[in-house]
Amino acid sequence: MDIRVQKIFEGLFALEDLREIYRQALPSGLDQEEETRFTEKIASIREILGDLEAGTGHPKVTRIAETIELRTREENLINIQPIQAAGRLTPEARKAVISYGDGYSTCDACRKPFRLDKICKPPIATFHEDLAAFVGMDQARVVPGARRGFQAVTSTIVNRGDSVLVSGLSHYTEYLAVENAGGIIREIPVNEQNVLKADAAADKIEQIKQETGAYPVLAMIDHYDYLLANEHDFAGIAKVAHQYDIPILYNGAYTVGVMPVDGKKLGADFVVGSGHKSMASPAPSGVLATTDEWADKVFRTTQMVGDLTKRKFGIKEVEMLGCTLMGVTLVAMMASFPTVKERTLHWDEELKKSNYFIDHLLKIEGSKVVSEYPRKHTLTKVDTTGSFDKVAQTHKRRGFFLSDELSKRSIGGEFAGATKTWKLNTFGLSWKKIHYLTDAFTEIAEKYEINILNEEKKR
Amino acid sequence: MDIRVQKIFEGLFALEDLREIYRQALPSGLDQEEETRFTEKIASIREILGDLEAGTGHPKVTRIAETIELRTREENLINIQPIQAAGRLTPEARKAVISYGDGYSTCDACRKPFRLDKICKPPIATFHEDLAAFVGMDQARVVPGARRGFQAVTSTIVNRGDSVLVSGLSHYTEYLAVENAGGIIREIPVNEQNVLKADAAADKIEQIKQETGAYPVLAMIDHYDYLLANEHDFAGIAKVAHQYDIPILYNGAYTVGVMPVDGKKLGADFVVGSGHKSMASPAPSGVLATTDEWADKVFRTTQMVGDLTKRKFGIKEVEMLGCTLMGVTLVAMMASFPTVKERTLHWDEELKKSNYFIDHLLKIEGSKVVSEYPRKHTLTKVDTTGSFDKVAQTHKRRGFFLSDELSKRSIGGEFAGATKTWKLNTFGLSWKKIHYLTDAFTEIAEKYEINILNEEKKR
Repeated sequence: MDIRVQKIFEGLFALEDLREIYRQALPSGLDQEEETRFTEKIASIREILGDLEAGTGHPKVTRIAETIELRTREENLINIQPIQAAGRLTPEARKAVISYGDGYSTCDACRKPFRLDKICKPPIATFHEDLAAFVGMDQARVVPGARRGFQAVTSTIVNRGDSVLVSGLSHYTEYLAVENAGGIIREIPVNEQNVLKADAAADKIEQIKQETGAYPVLAMIDHYDYLLANEHDFAGIAKVAHQYDIPILYNGAYTVGVMPVDGKKLGADFVVGSGHKSMASPAPSGVLATTDEWADKVFRTTQMVGDLTKRKFGIKEVEMLGCTLMGVTLVAMMASFPTVKERTLHWDEELKKSNYFIDHLLKIEGSKVVSEYPRKHTLTKVDTTGSFDKVAQTHKRRGFFLSDELSKRSIGGEFAGATKTWKLNTFGLSWKKIHYLTDAFTEIAEKYEINILNEEKKR
Repeated sequence: MDIRVQKIFEGLFALEDLREIYRQALPSGLDQEEETRFTEKIASIREILGDLEAGTGHPKVTRIAETIELRTREENLINIQPIQAAGRLTPEARKAVISYGDGYSTCDACRKPFRLDKICKPPIATFHEDLAAFVGMDQARVVPGARRGFQAVTSTIVNRGDSVLVSGLSHYTEYLAVENAGGIIREIPVNEQNVLKADAAADKIEQIKQETGAYPVLAMIDHYDYLLANEHDFAGIAKVAHQYDIPILYNGAYTVGVMPVDGKKLGADFVVGSGHKSMASPAPSGVLATTDEWADKVFRTTQMVGDLTKRKFGIKEVEMLGCTLMGVTLVAMMASFPTVKERTLHWDEELKKSNYFIDHLLKIEGSKVVSEYPRKHTLTKVDTTGSFDKVAQTHKRRGFFLSDELSKRSIGGEFAGATKTWKLNTFGLSWKKIHYLTDAFTEIAEKYEINILNEEKKR
């Protein structure tokens, strides 16, 4: 690790120790003992700062609470991990995390009617409005992860034995949300290009009706899937679903927060997004948005009355279980939001970088892309069976030779040991990082005498 | 705000800006432009440090992402907010939050079988074992808040129309979890002392059987309730429930993390705790623990098979929806855990401080305690209708006079404007803060010529 990165962490931690002195002190000020500790701590921070500037010194803090190693992946590596790329925090979110880490930190100014999305300071209420508009829907709530958004919808709509349409490339959390509600998953086949089309959805709906006597009660469709990040015809499928009066959920775990999403225009009844996957937010966080029509159902308020006390709980929402993200997860989402909004406007540039890298990977002879190509997403499944895996066959480290080579070049997040099919994500990498990454793969190929094609190679 | 607290935040934020330079830089090191920015930032941190030491300067950063004010309640005030006290982070948790803020930060070393509670680095697997042992149960999972623990249990056990036993003082999230599963809440009455007793539970069970023809399928009982924080006879009720073969959930939102809890000894089938309420953790976080017997049910793995693809999802757990807290919430829980374990051993001292404060509040003539007394918890509902509310009647600021007076003394977290019945929590305040707090209330009473009783006053 670069000693400077180490010293940045030591500086941050030392300032937290200083902060703790104030947390323990009386409001009237530090006593003499506290003042002494304060002065000592300042001196140690100056020392850290000296090391930081000079790039000298040795690591003094390597673990948190004795057992947890510092996590410096984003500082020390170019991280191409498939699901981490768009969830890394913005600097503003990291500041929010520092300021709002404490448990119920959003609840200082919670007033009647006592619900998270009504709080004005910090501006949570406004954020909810902005969030709904951002995904082109009428109302939004924050949820602890996209999966909890799926759950709220299946729990509202799906009864035991009901069929729910998903894609053959759907994420497991959709299966679990349906299972949890007692429903039955019915998969729409993708076509030969691994893309989901509207006609296949129509056929499946008819087939389900024939087999079970009933239409599916819900469709949950990923605009881009988790496996290949291919683009699927959500709008077309929505049109078909609506012809059968089937409400449709837009799974935007891989879109909301990275590219523009207009839920209503796409025909969505529900839009679900993931904070920690695509909105530069800490886990677990996410968004569930819907239309005014469906809001009354999925955001229905409690009707329960205590049989004895006759207590009622006002406007608490059943599927949300009241409040959802009462602290740091929400405030960090809010802090990242301006940057996240802005970055969706530059999705075309992200695609250029994605394709630049993939184009060059394909020049390494024997390499293929499993995802659709040219890429319409920054997440890509590649197949290096014909290139790097050939090296792995005879290398004493087997598939780990590639991880070793990447690691030497400070690239991380590949699936360690995988040299056949594997996924990577270039989201958020600057052009200079893209060039570095591209060169690294080319260099590794050259080192192991894999031929580099000069011609533009087609899949 | 003390300028030093302001400067601590500015120092932390400036170090995050410095960290961002490294996040954007190539692994090969800073380029010239980055090095220049680095040097400038170091200079600005030195300046902040100078101000910090001298206690000089002016606030330069007052908002995050332009709209979010710095939250300095814990640094600048003695915080007596009823639900925030035991959720404030330890310094170690704050360091974890800094290090592990990014989205899927726990997932760097996720290997087969790909489940959060199996990850060894950071030591999440061990933490799960420790957590189960900590609450005296066999198995534990982390969940996004206690309410999600309730939901997992009701969703597993409660079918439409089933009765679920709760207390007349139960928290609304239990009502919602039952409503969500389609069950019906049946409240056990508390006695005249607002305490739940086993005989009342037995009577209610018989009454439900008589009225509905069926026994309740689940009991959810708060060891200490949220309203008065009175101690209820959980162990006695568990015995009764088990006589009828009714499984019982121990709601430890106000106990797990502040006092010792031995679930099995208490007769619990499920133990639920709240990270952000009582385990010095960020929101949303919590724990659901159970016995080996019930683990197969509530932690059942998915049985869903894709009708077309025949895909299965291995050991993903239906009620958890796969993984739960994939980032900062979990790592901060882990970082606070050693401190949290230790502090439960000093609960008796927390009670001494709680009673010390309440004893002195009761000396302010006309003041009463609504909760049981002497206190067995640090959360207390008081009634100052006969003391501070009398002042409010004629004060131009009405009930807000008390908030104003507390605010002047840097005490916060009371329910603003409330002078009749209101709640406060002394958890985690040092003796010197307790004395400060006690003196402040006495001073305010004296200022408004409320008589201070010299004799020990009984409720």
